[in-house]
Amino acid sequence: MRNLIICVLTLVSFTAFAQSKDFNQYVNPFIGTKNMGHTYPGATVPFGMVQLSPETDSVWYEHEGRYNKPVYRYCAGYQYEDQTITGFSHTHFSGTGHSDLGDFLIIPTIGDLKLNPGTADKPESGYRSRYSHDQEFAEPNYYEVDLLDYNIKAQLTTSNRVGFHQYTFNSNDETHVILDCISNIYNHKEKNVWTFIRIENDSTVVGYRQTNGWARTRTVYFAMKFSKPIKSYGHKKYDKSIYKGFWRKFDETKNFPEMAGKLIRAYFNFDMKEGEKLKIKFALSPTSTRNALLNMNAEIPHWNFDKVKMDGQKLWNEELSRIEVETLTKADKETFYTAMYHSFLGPITYMDVDGSYKGLDQNIHKAKDFTNYTIFSLWDTYRALHPLFNLIQQKRNSDMIESMMAHYDQSVHKMLPIWSHYANENWCMIGYHSVPVIADAIVKGTYEGDKNAALAACVQTSKQGYFDGLKYYMDLGYVPEDKNSSSVSKTLEYAYDDWTIYNLATYLGDTDIANEYLKRSTYFKKVYNAESGFMQPKLSDGSWREEFDTMSTHGQGFIEGNAWNYGLYVPHDVATMVEMMGGKKKFSKHLDQLFTMEIDDHHIAETEDITRDGIIGNYVHGNEPGHHIPYLYNWTGDDWKTQERVRMIMRTMYSNDIDGLCGNDDAGQMSAWYIFSSLGFYPVCPGSDEYAIGSPLVKEAIINLENGKTLKIIAKDQSEKNVYVKKIEINGKKINRNYLKHDELMAGGTITFYMSKKR
Amino acid sequence: MRNLIICVLTLVSFTAFAQSKDFNQYVNPFIGTKNMGHTYPGATVPFGMVQLSPETDSVWYEHEGRYNKPVYRYCAGYQYEDQTITGFSHTHFSGTGHSDLGDFLIIPTIGDLKLNPGTADKPESGYRSRYSHDQEFAEPNYYEVDLLDYNIKAQLTTSNRVGFHQYTFNSNDETHVILDCISNIYNHKEKNVWTFIRIENDSTVVGYRQTNGWARTRTVYFAMKFSKPIKSYGHKKYDKSIYKGFWRKFDETKNFPEMAGKLIRAYFNFDMKEGEKLKIKFALSPTSTRNALLNMNAEIPHWNFDKVKMDGQKLWNEELSRIEVETLTKADKETFYTAMYHSFLGPITYMDVDGSYKGLDQNIHKAKDFTNYTIFSLWDTYRALHPLFNLIQQKRNSDMIESMMAHYDQSVHKMLPIWSHYANENWCMIGYHSVPVIADAIVKGTYEGDKNAALAACVQTSKQGYFDGLKYYMDLGYVPEDKNSSSVSKTLEYAYDDWTIYNLATYLGDTDIANEYLKRSTYFKKVYNAESGFMQPKLSDGSWREEFDTMSTHGQGFIEGNAWNYGLYVPHDVATMVEMMGGKKKFSKHLDQLFTMEIDDHHIAETEDITRDGIIGNYVHGNEPGHHIPYLYNWTGDDWKTQERVRMIMRTMYSNDIDGLCGNDDAGQMSAWYIFSSLGFYPVCPGSDEYAIGSPLVKEAIINLENGKTLKIIAKDQSEKNVYVKKIEINGKKINRNYLKHDELMAGGTITFYMSKKR
Repeated sequence: MRNLIICVLTLVSFTAFAQSKDFNQYVNPFIGTKNMGHTYPGATVPFGMVQLSPETDSVWYEHEGRYNKPVYRYCAGYQYEDQTITGFSHTHFSGTGHSDLGDFLIIPTIGDLKLNPGTADKPESGYRSRYSHDQEFAEPNYYEVDLLDYNIKAQLTTSNRVGFHQYTFNSNDETHVILDCISNIYNHKEKNVWTFIRIENDSTVVGYRQTNGWARTRTVYFAMKFSKPIKSYGHKKYDKSIYKGFWRKFDETKNFPEMAGKLIRAYFNFDMKEGEKLKIKFALSPTSTRNALLNMNAEIPHWNFDKVKMDGQKLWNEELSRIEVETLTKADKETFYTAMYHSFLGPITYMDVDGSYKGLDQNIHKAKDFTNYTIFSLWDTYRALHPLFNLIQQKRNSDMIESMMAHYDQSVHKMLPIWSHYANENWCMIGYHSVPVIADAIVKGTYEGDKNAALAACVQTSKQGYFDGLKYYMDLGYVPEDKNSSSVSKTLEYAYDDWTIYNLATYLGDTDIANEYLKRSTYFKKVYNAESGFMQPKLSDGSWREEFDTMSTHGQGFIEGNAWNYGLYVPHDVATMVEMMGGKKKFSKHLDQLFTMEIDDHHIAETEDITRDGIIGNYVHGNEPGHHIPYLYNWTGDDWKTQERVRMIMRTMYSNDIDGLCGNDDAGQMSAWYIFSSLGFYPVCPGSDEYAIGSPLVKEAIINLENGKTLKIIAKDQSEKNVYVKKIEINGKKINRNYLKHDELMAGGTITFYMSKKR
Repeated sequence: MRNLIICVLTLVSFTAFAQSKDFNQYVNPFIGTKNMGHTYPGATVPFGMVQLSPETDSVWYEHEGRYNKPVYRYCAGYQYEDQTITGFSHTHFSGTGHSDLGDFLIIPTIGDLKLNPGTADKPESGYRSRYSHDQEFAEPNYYEVDLLDYNIKAQLTTSNRVGFHQYTFNSNDETHVILDCISNIYNHKEKNVWTFIRIENDSTVVGYRQTNGWARTRTVYFAMKFSKPIKSYGHKKYDKSIYKGFWRKFDETKNFPEMAGKLIRAYFNFDMKEGEKLKIKFALSPTSTRNALLNMNAEIPHWNFDKVKMDGQKLWNEELSRIEVETLTKADKETFYTAMYHSFLGPITYMDVDGSYKGLDQNIHKAKDFTNYTIFSLWDTYRALHPLFNLIQQKRNSDMIESMMAHYDQSVHKMLPIWSHYANENWCMIGYHSVPVIADAIVKGTYEGDKNAALAACVQTSKQGYFDGLKYYMDLGYVPEDKNSSSVSKTLEYAYDDWTIYNLATYLGDTDIANEYLKRSTYFKKVYNAESGFMQPKLSDGSWREEFDTMSTHGQGFIEGNAWNYGLYVPHDVATMVEMMGGKKKFSKHLDQLFTMEIDDHHIAETEDITRDGIIGNYVHGNEPGHHIPYLYNWTGDDWKTQERVRMIMRTMYSNDIDGLCGNDDAGQMSAWYIFSSLGFYPVCPGSDEYAIGSPLVKEAIINLENGKTLKIIAKDQSEKNVYVKKIEINGKKINRNYLKHDELMAGGTITFYMSKKR
């Protein structure tokens, strides 16, 4: 059936890209759903607002007097090894190491009405159902599973702003659709602030929910339509919010079309026959129930499930076709296209079809001539994901920067986003990494907006003294550990961010700013202790903090990395760092040691977000601070070691299996690393226009650029053992350097890597 | 100073009305602030969105381990006998018997920062201050008081949507302005749902608060500007709502420009010198902080306190000048114009200057060509307040009906408002009394909108079966007491409301509807028990409920009235009721008995909303169900008894003193009764175009009609003892009936009452 649809699709569609090919077949949405990947298997379209996906145990429930929810496991709502599904909710992070979302959980049930989710070990105690991976299937924009306890087949697909459910009933029992507005993904159960629901008519329900989760003040509006009239309905309120109005007037709990309170579960009853389908369209909006309806009617004005699925799959195929690869194995192809898929799950669209969205100032704004996006996990994604967009999603990346500029305009702090999330600033992680994203786009010619305004926003952001030790950094040239935690990481990231302002200002011809920030970009030197040979935490009096464990991730001046990994973060001036740390030879050995040293279980245990699977020696690929490290050999003359390492990492840290991600995918950053590395180059220093050369994994790649040109990458004599790059030619002309320039890629043509098993 | 301002005012203003006269001088905003009147003394403009007024003890506080708040006393926030002021908040009901509002309490303090309100008996334990009535003054749109504990003079005035504070400091101490977003008027302390505050710059603060009070889902947005830069600021959060973002980043509590949570008190510090003034503009909006700022800038683009005060007072003088009266005493004039003042305090404007408002569906709407109003306390106000508007506020009343129609359009119940309140339906009290308001306006030619649409809305409203026993009423012809409480009151009010639909349909020529509702209008007969001679509760099997106490207000089939009072509610067919109850003579005696019988303390105690002061015999003037009763003698041939009674009621139930209202003013209904009765007539049956004649209290009145005509009322030989009307002439022509027609009033001219001491 799937093949037939795609066949139809190819007949009716025609784009500049390779539409006759089916790239969706190589995507396995289950990759990363086991353990730490934190991806979800559900349905969504590229950069879509709705992520309609199953939750396996993300619902808080009381069990033997205790509230249970191992929430970190459920950042994306789904864990492959779980045995039960609690329902299908409409919003999910992809790959994050922090949880939130999980809005508007829906599950169809039959038999006695149960409004509680029940527990994993006693599914029959609540509405949840057992399921089996044998009756479960996922592909881009489609997820299906059998809810075994109810003998209901669930099928999910989406448009950008609308989730489309299709449930096939296989009995004549009494049927309920539960809309659980208590259910949430988050690590405290007091997340719900307010829920409001209206039953507009016999098949339409609208409402909203405000939450105080990771995003402090977040409201999502919805509109839901059933394909069949509701027979009866009701709700239960689990809090003590009051409704004085209804006394003497109504039984509020049954067939009363207005519900409001903090904790609400609603249900809708239907008479369904064996074999009958119930379809639900569930639209979201950041601004109003009116616009949720507008979104629904604009995007899916019909009830044709297959058409919605097909339309979304067509979008996916178009996006995936931006890079066409030939690989050594089919498994590689699956890993590659699933990485592409994961890279295009976010940032997500955050506006209605008419451009309305809620701003950081909590007012409603209209996006003029751009698509507004949210969920910017910038400490992760500035590294490779946005640079990837600058190569193959330029228009979108420009709009993302426009979204950041809108955030900046609405920010009371006058700061670009740190971690922007549905009209909230989550302040997650460190640095101000909108800055390198903007600088990267501008120096690469991608950003279509006001470049000088963008530079001004970068400068303003980098001077907000009360932000995270920044005043100390500006005053002392480093963040002092006794005044602010993770001081070394912050100093290093600030210095790098500042270099990108320098480079941007230079590009735009503003010498004053360039000079100021060139100076700030050297501040990494202030936290280098030549005696220890490590970057290490310094106190406000200028002395080094005495206690210092280079192996520990906690309390040593770093965050989510130890001194061995995070201490190598000077991407903008690797040469100086190498020199500072003893020169090329010593530095190369230092890297060797990093990749080979033994690490004890104690230090493994405290390493965040990854397991031993994500570690090579003491090198941690499962988290971001080290993502550039394998490429640093290029600055030591030992390029072959980079080539060896990146191939090894691609082989051991990624696979096409459910546990194919060795750490959180981190909103696409892990996947973007893989895509670049597979192509043979990597943006060690976003904000510059250079890519360090690694070792391609693909046999061949065709990059269909937005400028209409085509860049072909050929890895000649590619094989499992031929990991070393002997020669590189651009359009047949050999280059004598170990980096590529952005313009060279954008010009199209052919880059040929000559592979060999000899270094 | 006041006289000077008004003098200036009269020089610059010119309207059709008597602008050279100062009617404001007769208004005493303190009338009704003692005991049950539930009026507030603060500043507001006619029908204004902001009611900026002191709170004397309406703040929940913990005292000796218990939460204290005798909330019913504080429906309007202020009780005259209290010794302390907790601050000044921006929204207040006038005269209601139910509490809510009290948004955004502000108080300036000096010395140590105290963020708790403290207790009445230990004011120094918190931010509240002692005050004295000797240093307190109020007039329309102006309130001033000395905060004795801080030696600060507080002056308040408003425009429609903006409160303007002026604080004069008399020392050089450290100064704080507290913005207490926990403070609220309501009877449960869990009212606060969410508060959001942003410090936009050194003098501008915006935010909003969502509450779950009497209105279930209510959000008010604000913008606040100080006349002087904030020196420093901070807040304390009293709840456990979380803000993950700020960890490691900020001290959120001090000088951090974003605050959010459930329970927040903020403070702003200033350096003030002796004699220096701090001014605060505080704008409200129903839709957004952006529009709150828009409202502020549109209405008060300057810092001239006196101009704002004067502009508002000019508006008041214009409104009050709609009726110019000469009275027997100055006290009467004060009572009269304060009644006018109280009648014009609501419904309140509920839209931004650009017409935006939040609808019942929680979406933002724009009012097209009308002013949108909210706070419709219709069970109270349909009786005399809206009829008064049909005489002297026709344009506004038409807009109020337009607001009701908008409410209807947005209602998921497809019902006109019952008690509409800031985008909420409070469902308070019984009946569907938008219907008589609409019918009254249409048959009197006031409503400018689509009359047939209005009729359709009335019909639809009256058929919502799940509403308050209505299905039983439609099926059985009465509400059965075993199925729904207050069944007799509901039956009587429904039957009356239905008569107004009949009359409206007749007026619009819809015979089918007219016939249907004429039948429904007779349903009052079904609850009359000829054996007992009373309307009394009937069960669903058709039998009378055995237990029946004609004196009790509780559980006897009535609400806020007993069988003696509420049982006489057949305003649309008094003649039939009189006949049914034994004929004119017997009915007249029945009324005599009502006004003279003894009532024991037990029954007094259970009578709601009033004290013994509001009772004459068993007649309760302090509540609405009996307001038409004094006029019923007109249907018995004993018109003189009506004349005697209404004069007696005006003398004993009203005065120009602080306790001059014998019960809740009920959003102007008590006052509107007084105004009509003072003029010599009263709308016993709104929805008809007739007014029953009573006995005027004024010596003379000039009613400046919106049609440009002038109606003069002359009470010839008026005196304290001459309460009987011997003759009435319209334009010199004697009439031989005891009612006036609306057209006769609107035609202008002169109505002369010939008064006598002999009946």
